[in-house]
Amino acid sequence: MAKWKITSFLAVAGLLFLLQPAFGQTRYEIDFPNVPGYVTLKCDFHMHTVFSDGSVWPGVRVAETWRQGLDAIAITDHIEYQPHKDDVPTKHNRSHELATGAAGDCDLLIARAAEITRDTPPGHFNAIFTTDNEPLDTPDFVEAMKRANEQGAFVFWNHQGWKGEDKGRWMEVHTTLLDNKWLQGMEVCNGSEYYPTAHKWCLEKGLTMLGNTDIHDPDLRKRSEPGDHRTMNLVFAKERSLPAVKEALMEGRTAVWYNDRVIGRKEWLEPLFKECVKVVPSPVWREKTVFVQFHNDCDVDIRLQRIGNVGPEQVTLPAMATTLVKIGVAPDAKSLPLSYTATNFWIAPDTGLPVAFEILRP
Amino acid sequence: MAKWKITSFLAVAGLLFLLQPAFGQTRYEIDFPNVPGYVTLKCDFHMHTVFSDGSVWPGVRVAETWRQGLDAIAITDHIEYQPHKDDVPTKHNRSHELATGAAGDCDLLIARAAEITRDTPPGHFNAIFTTDNEPLDTPDFVEAMKRANEQGAFVFWNHQGWKGEDKGRWMEVHTTLLDNKWLQGMEVCNGSEYYPTAHKWCLEKGLTMLGNTDIHDPDLRKRSEPGDHRTMNLVFAKERSLPAVKEALMEGRTAVWYNDRVIGRKEWLEPLFKECVKVVPSPVWREKTVFVQFHNDCDVDIRLQRIGNVGPEQVTLPAMATTLVKIGVAPDAKSLPLSYTATNFWIAPDTGLPVAFEILRP
Amino acid sequence: MAKWKITSFLAVAGLLFLLQPAFGQTRYEIDFPNVPGYVTLKCDFHMHTVFSDGSVWPGVRVAETWRQGLDAIAITDHIEYQPHKDDVPTKHNRSHELATGAAGDCDLLIARAAEITRDTPPGHFNAIFTTDNEPLDTPDFVEAMKRANEQGAFVFWNHQGWKGEDKGRWMEVHTTLLDNKWLQGMEVCNGSEYYPTAHKWCLEKGLTMLGNTDIHDPDLRKRSEPGDHRTMNLVFAKERSLPAVKEALMEGRTAVWYNDRVIGRKEWLEPLFKECVKVVPSPVWREKTVFVQFHNDCDVDIRLQRIGNVGPEQVTLPAMATTLVKIGVAPDAKSLPLSYTATNFWIAPDTGLPVAFEILRP
Amino acid sequence: MAKWKITSFLAVAGLLFLLQPAFGQTRYEIDFPNVPGYVTLKCDFHMHTVFSDGSVWPGVRVAETWRQGLDAIAITDHIEYQPHKDDVPTKHNRSHELATGAAGDCDLLIARAAEITRDTPPGHFNAIFTTDNEPLDTPDFVEAMKRANEQGAFVFWNHQGWKGEDKGRWMEVHTTLLDNKWLQGMEVCNGSEYYPTAHKWCLEKGLTMLGNTDIHDPDLRKRSEPGDHRTMNLVFAKERSLPAVKEALMEGRTAVWYNDRVIGRKEWLEPLFKECVKVVPSPVWREKTVFVQFHNDCDVDIRLQRIGNVGPEQVTLPAMATTLVKIGVAPDAKSLPLSYTATNFWIAPDTGLPVAFEILRP
Repeated sequence: MAKWKITSFLAVAGLLFLLQPAFGQTRYEIDFPNVPGYVTLKCDFHMHTVFSDGSVWPGVRVAETWRQGLDAIAITDHIEYQPHKDDVPTKHNRSHELATGAAGDCDLLIARAAEITRDTPPGHFNAIFTTDNEPLDTPDFVEAMKRANEQGAFVFWNHQGWKGEDKGRWMEVHTTLLDNKWLQGMEVCNGSEYYPTAHKWCLEKGLTMLGNTDIHDPDLRKRSEPGDHRTMNLVFAKERSLPAVKEALMEGRTAVWYNDRVIGRKEWLEPLFKECVKVVPSPVWREKTVFVQFHNDCDVDIRLQRIGNVGPEQVTLPAMATTLVKIGVAPDAKSLPLSYTATNFWIAPDTGLPVAFEILRP
Repeated sequence: MAKWKITSFLAVAGLLFLLQPAFGQTRYEIDFPNVPGYVTLKCDFHMHTVFSDGSVWPGVRVAETWRQGLDAIAITDHIEYQPHKDDVPTKHNRSHELATGAAGDCDLLIARAAEITRDTPPGHFNAIFTTDNEPLDTPDFVEAMKRANEQGAFVFWNHQGWKGEDKGRWMEVHTTLLDNKWLQGMEVCNGSEYYPTAHKWCLEKGLTMLGNTDIHDPDLRKRSEPGDHRTMNLVFAKERSLPAVKEALMEGRTAVWYNDRVIGRKEWLEPLFKECVKVVPSPVWREKTVFVQFHNDCDVDIRLQRIGNVGPEQVTLPAMATTLVKIGVAPDAKSLPLSYTATNFWIAPDTGLPVAFEILRP
Repeated sequence: MAKWKITSFLAVAGLLFLLQPAFGQTRYEIDFPNVPGYVTLKCDFHMHTVFSDGSVWPGVRVAETWRQGLDAIAITDHIEYQPHKDDVPTKHNRSHELATGAAGDCDLLIARAAEITRDTPPGHFNAIFTTDNEPLDTPDFVEAMKRANEQGAFVFWNHQGWKGEDKGRWMEVHTTLLDNKWLQGMEVCNGSEYYPTAHKWCLEKGLTMLGNTDIHDPDLRKRSEPGDHRTMNLVFAKERSLPAVKEALMEGRTAVWYNDRVIGRKEWLEPLFKECVKVVPSPVWREKTVFVQFHNDCDVDIRLQRIGNVGPEQVTLPAMATTLVKIGVAPDAKSLPLSYTATNFWIAPDTGLPVAFEILRP
Repeated sequence: MAKWKITSFLAVAGLLFLLQPAFGQTRYEIDFPNVPGYVTLKCDFHMHTVFSDGSVWPGVRVAETWRQGLDAIAITDHIEYQPHKDDVPTKHNRSHELATGAAGDCDLLIARAAEITRDTPPGHFNAIFTTDNEPLDTPDFVEAMKRANEQGAFVFWNHQGWKGEDKGRWMEVHTTLLDNKWLQGMEVCNGSEYYPTAHKWCLEKGLTMLGNTDIHDPDLRKRSEPGDHRTMNLVFAKERSLPAVKEALMEGRTAVWYNDRVIGRKEWLEPLFKECVKVVPSPVWREKTVFVQFHNDCDVDIRLQRIGNVGPEQVTLPAMATTLVKIGVAPDAKSLPLSYTATNFWIAPDTGLPVAFEILRP
């Protein structure tokens, strides 16, 4: 037993060795294909540790996200809310410092960050890619936001609808932030919650869409699975690096994997869908029937609803699998034009992505 | 989202509500039957938090053990080893205090405890059922052990073979402890390790056998399962209460559920086996064949190896299931006497428990 | 390898031995408690083999239902639909005969049966507890139904809504059957389908409610699980025997476990619920809060929706688990009266069962 | 419910639709990379149906192997053993004919085949790629083998050690077959059994190594998983076609995926291993430590045992995952030469494959 345990990522690894047949710590990748011109990075930018109101040491956040296949994270302990301070005296940069060495060992990208916390409204805001969290500890909310931006941070509004639509309303101060370009994004999803108003505002105001866990307790998931995964951001970045992640966030190149669906702007969900779903070559044509195999190369069970009247009314394409679909055709048909809505690729609240396939008779 | 999170057991519960369809925190019982005269309690008496070298807040230990079906626990932070002390100043009773309210809410039994830690040899020792951990912080090892005993604690030697047989040897000081009755038990198992020498010494010296996790990091298990569970103690207690747990430990009424097996004294494994495995009434007798159904009412896949030559050579009785076994008999046989060894009920190192069944022709 | 394989239940067992560490075939019980005065038997009365349009040998039906924890079954091959007859010449009693020996070996109850099959309407009807299926092979539909009843069979209308409400309508001939007492029940559920009209007619006309698989292909389930189980009947019988099953069916003492819910008459769901859900003794009362543990002793995740305003709005009680619920109370409250609807215990289409609990301050 | 069920592959599909949220039948690929010059096809050439002593209709074999990710199969009903003939009159080509249309619909390759069955010794032999099975029904064993070869079949000896080493011995007749080139391969594995003697003879006599299920009952597996999969052949073929499969078998380009290991000639396991295990670019070098990530791109949990003294003694690389390994180095080391045995890639009985990695300091 690793008695003299250094509680870092490698200490975490230490225990796992005992649970496994032999030495090593294991990571399972999350399956989403890259899109033309960009790599698809999986990221969580909202999580807590004992240094604010979380229940784990910072190294736990590195171990659990690396294990689950994430590429980049940020620990966002509250500046203002310090319920453990009698036992863990306040130090605003400490959780990032404790996590950063472990993250380096396993090549997980980690950005310094903090949560600027005010009663709702105006609410809670994450500043990620900060350079020093101490100056953010100031009573003046707008000043704190300004300072974060001066550090070059990417700043977003967290869980807008958390306390209800009334509390999550758009106020004067939000307009001030927007006008000053001190607010770049909003959480459309936070943990198990989805906020249609935030979703709408992102589309209207050109804000980057985000989805994070806001996790406080240990994450029990060993790996990311279609039916049980972190709420996370898909960031379409020029390369796998912290500067590239920041650039993609600033430019709004994101989607959110939330529950059983993907949420994002049409301009990103469209190429993503095309990379995810492919018709397997050489469908089998019988006289009045075609047998088409669709391969789904991502971790979402994709649901299709027919537009028009060709093909089955509904098709589900389970994650990372091939689905055989039997479709009736006229004996003289030269091709089979399929028109569907991907009902769980949301380009706006409750609005699926239109998709089409053309199957040609050989 | 529970933003202003009080990191206690109920805060832990708070997050889980979001992950589940509705309000509530869930516990799955561990299946081991009671034995005549005693209730079978499931207990872990060795675990750590951020208050020594662990990576979780104390409430996490309550949440994870309650969820996994345990009845009693003890948090045993090191007295001497305080690697987080720059961030979490030393307080030897604090982790117990933080856990105790949460434990009360869900009726989990929790004993105050600490780990008295010296270089191996002599090694690490847990004192559980202490009344105040501060006096244990003394440089004199024997004095610390004496003080624990004066508080009425139950004291055991942890992971004897951890650093190898040479380091885990029996020394003068152990004899001193034994002679003074300051040492009542030994860990036969710790996490993924089993110590045959400790097992043998428990049998020879009349020490209570223990098996604990010594967990430092979050436990990812949602529930206890035959193939993936905590190393734990089965304590045969007069009732479900802390005093009854202590009395049972002092009297040596324990077994250890470790990996795929149960380890304990024959006097306890024998009645436990009898309550676990029952022949379902009315086996089906054909002319030359009997179909016998065995029900296994515990969470261990029990393996039987034939003694003699009646019945199949090997039978596995999966946990919490009924197994149908076809056995050849002479057409005039009046009964079927079955004699087996339960090879994973260990009454000594690598020594299974002998068991017998008699099936009568109706 | 069992090369010279007798394709019976034991041959099935033969293969499984190879997949398991040792000799034996395993059954996992389905968890539903008995109700006062009756045992709760789990039954499937609709399934096919190669002797009509199924794809398995009869012994497979015995192996798969015994393994999954069922108590009683009936193989209901079509009398009139014999698509394999060029390869498997028609014999209406043969599938039952081939299954019955294997069923005896493992003490599974099996009733002789057949499916009387006409274009819809009038539709398909199962006659179970027949004594000879050959006479049912007659072109006159009413005559076939009469003959089944003369054999003492229990007869029910299968999948009424299968081809749509128009095809599944009530006709003159159904009235004739009802008036002659030649029709005793209806399938409310068949495989993955639920028929609200059949449900309503059962309540109105005093017909027994049934739910079966109508399985044609191999069942891949190793065991019955809350999220993946056969559609099945819960039959409240005086004892575990074929005559007792028939008596219970004739008297309408059934419920249907379908998908995530239980469907049945209020007079049976009420006592069933009371046996399933128990408040664990001694809830923890704090000044303004009570911590109540509910134990759910059945294989259904029970969903509760609050009536009134005491307690959380929604509670889910996962199957075979204990759920901790925190409820606010007035400091001077002497008791906590909880009033809920069990929304997935259906006493009529889309109508949950009202339930109540009273928690007293100690 | 698909009442008028045509028991073919699509009928199988029919039922599954009901179990799934919508239309479609699903296949999960088996992960083994191609090797230079060849595609890696997954194949099972030994299985039974109701047309000999199996318990399923032929279409079930197509559905279950397509679903589990196989590329090519052969149904090998016994010529001589026909225990169902009173119910299913003997027709030696019928099971292939019934399966072949369904296989075409989903693009599964299927070879006509039969099992030539004699008491052991000499034993059972599969002839695959036959053109007509009727002429194989002849009492003269050698004549039957000759006829199969005249049809161009690939012929192999099944489960040599099934009845013990004495029964599975090499006889005169086997020499006759070998001399005439009428025997091209042997099963090294059959279902859950492995035969070291067959393994040795394949190496000595230049016979192709095979591993099949010999399945008689329904296969309950929904997909192939590292811990629960069919025993199967990996065939290294020039393309995905029946002629290419036959050519590869004739040339001995196979490996066997059996239980937790891969068995085959060194010349095939070596390139397979190189494609399976890759060092992730840019290991992290600290002063005295290197953090290396190994990616395992196949469905086997690969176990490595150190040769020499650099690196951890044992490493397990879980299937389809990345494993982080921390290795001590001298501060001035320019590179890290790792030398291991892949203990579950067997190039001879109980003999692992030697492998090496060189990690360079950047």
